[in-house]
Amino acid sequence: MGPGLTESVKVLVRFNEADPLGIVWHGHYVRYFEDGREAFGEKYGLRYLDIYEYGYTVPVVNVVCNYRKPLRYGDSVRIETTYINTAAAKVRFEYKLFNAATGELVADGSSLQVFLDIATSTLQLTMPPFFEKWKQTQGLLSPSNKEKK
Amino acid sequence: MGPGLTESVKVLVRFNEADPLGIVWHGHYVRYFEDGREAFGEKYGLRYLDIYEYGYTVPVVNVVCNYRKPLRYGDSVRIETTYINTAAAKVRFEYKLFNAATGELVADGSSLQVFLDIATSTLQLTMPPFFEKWKQTQGLLSPSNKEKK
Amino acid sequence: MGPGLTESVKVLVRFNEADPLGIVWHGHYVRYFEDGREAFGEKYGLRYLDIYEYGYTVPVVNVVCNYRKPLRYGDSVRIETTYINTAAAKVRFEYKLFNAATGELVADGSSLQVFLDIATSTLQLTMPPFFEKWKQTQGLLSPSNKEKK
Amino acid sequence: MGPGLTESVKVLVRFNEADPLGIVWHGHYVRYFEDGREAFGEKYGLRYLDIYEYGYTVPVVNVVCNYRKPLRYGDSVRIETTYINTAAAKVRFEYKLFNAATGELVADGSSLQVFLDIATSTLQLTMPPFFEKWKQTQGLLSPSNKEKK
Repeated sequence: MGPGLTESVKVLVRFNEADPLGIVWHGHYVRYFEDGREAFGEKYGLRYLDIYEYGYTVPVVNVVCNYRKPLRYGDSVRIETTYINTAAAKVRFEYKLFNAATGELVADGSSLQVFLDIATSTLQLTMPPFFEKWKQTQGLLSPSNKEKK
Repeated sequence: MGPGLTESVKVLVRFNEADPLGIVWHGHYVRYFEDGREAFGEKYGLRYLDIYEYGYTVPVVNVVCNYRKPLRYGDSVRIETTYINTAAAKVRFEYKLFNAATGELVADGSSLQVFLDIATSTLQLTMPPFFEKWKQTQGLLSPSNKEKK
Repeated sequence: MGPGLTESVKVLVRFNEADPLGIVWHGHYVRYFEDGREAFGEKYGLRYLDIYEYGYTVPVVNVVCNYRKPLRYGDSVRIETTYINTAAAKVRFEYKLFNAATGELVADGSSLQVFLDIATSTLQLTMPPFFEKWKQTQGLLSPSNKEKK
Repeated sequence: MGPGLTESVKVLVRFNEADPLGIVWHGHYVRYFEDGREAFGEKYGLRYLDIYEYGYTVPVVNVVCNYRKPLRYGDSVRIETTYINTAAAKVRFEYKLFNAATGELVADGSSLQVFLDIATSTLQLTMPPFFEKWKQTQGLLSPSNKEKK
């Protein structure tokens, strides 16, 4: 199991995302996290829509964001999204947000998602088969995990 | 048929609704319109959820907004929503937004909605029965309309 | 004076822009209009930030939007923004939104902006010099206009 | 020093805050936190605007949110905001969000803010005088703190 899978996407800061202090309102960073997650999903076949087709949704159960430097209207933000592997039936991402022009780290954070079976609306306590397969494809299953199967 | 039905609701301008110029970003007024529509629906039994239970949704097909004075963080806005009766299978509202403290008109506008049958996803060219009933209850059916029944 | 200046930009529909009916909430289209305006400004040197440096802001005084087809999460929308020339001290844009995959027109609309002098906070009843210059550069001043100078 | 200061406010879940899954999109909870903070500030004289008049802004440097139960359009959410006293030059709040109808805890979380001097744009490493005074008024200064003055 090597380093986490990562994808990077650049997003323009919108005028309507900046607040009266001229900086991006802190609540919008959760939106950037989702933009990052989507770009990751696009690259690695793990978009909401993909997961949905497998019969699951992945509601967010925890979000953490640390704000380090302000972003302003006119800036571009580079969102680096890293999948953090875990043995649990959960999906964990870590985010690093950079000012695309200066390269400065402006924020970081994480999110945790669980699996809900759409048909039964029940929380999945074990990994859904499609996700185990996805992990395997990505080389994220440890040998011991594989043996157990 | 007297004057239109009206409902008024007061909403606090949120910090995160103001832009770098310190005034409410113009796109948020569409949100205020919806707040007004909801308050109207609450009073007159025409909430989205009520309509949904009758088997219809009412997508917005047109919005117009005129901005007259700025709103700032810390202001309260009073949204006056008036139902404009029409013979068509449509729902038309007009909005007047006032600065709640000064009474000044800050914006006005309108919205137009149509009826979609949820089961068939089809646009309704004639008024759904529930809506005709609603109009009757509100005294909004003209005598000629009533005679036709 | 030929046809209006136009710029086109493609925007991904975000999951968080779709409502419980699965379609983009109508209020977000005003955001798409602004995305279009920004792309136009980027191309033709008329970004908010450019205008701001000239000492003006351009508050929106009117928005109209017609909704023709729904947009869904997963769709991309192509926003076509056209500058509509006028003799008044105003900035008028027209928008056409297309489903980027099918080419279908999903919405159209317009916006009108006025000029505020930042220093004095006053509405400009005549075109600011920088804007007249911009028009000239773009070939948007009619001969009669030019003669008067 | 007794238990933390608390304020409670009820907010209606807006249609446009719910996502295609029919539940409030997780990013909007940060907005609810701010609504709670504003209600707290209104009660205890600690609104953004109050702080601004003292010459400071209080940017958020950390947000944490745990999502426990979904909120749906039509629900009301009761936001309970508690000020958590600390010796540092920081403002910490904890939030508990309840479904107003059922009383169920739907989310909890926290935020951390620092003080920026507006005039100098510098982070304050010691408590601004106005805030120390505010704490004193609220009975939040420990005896040892008071002696040092």
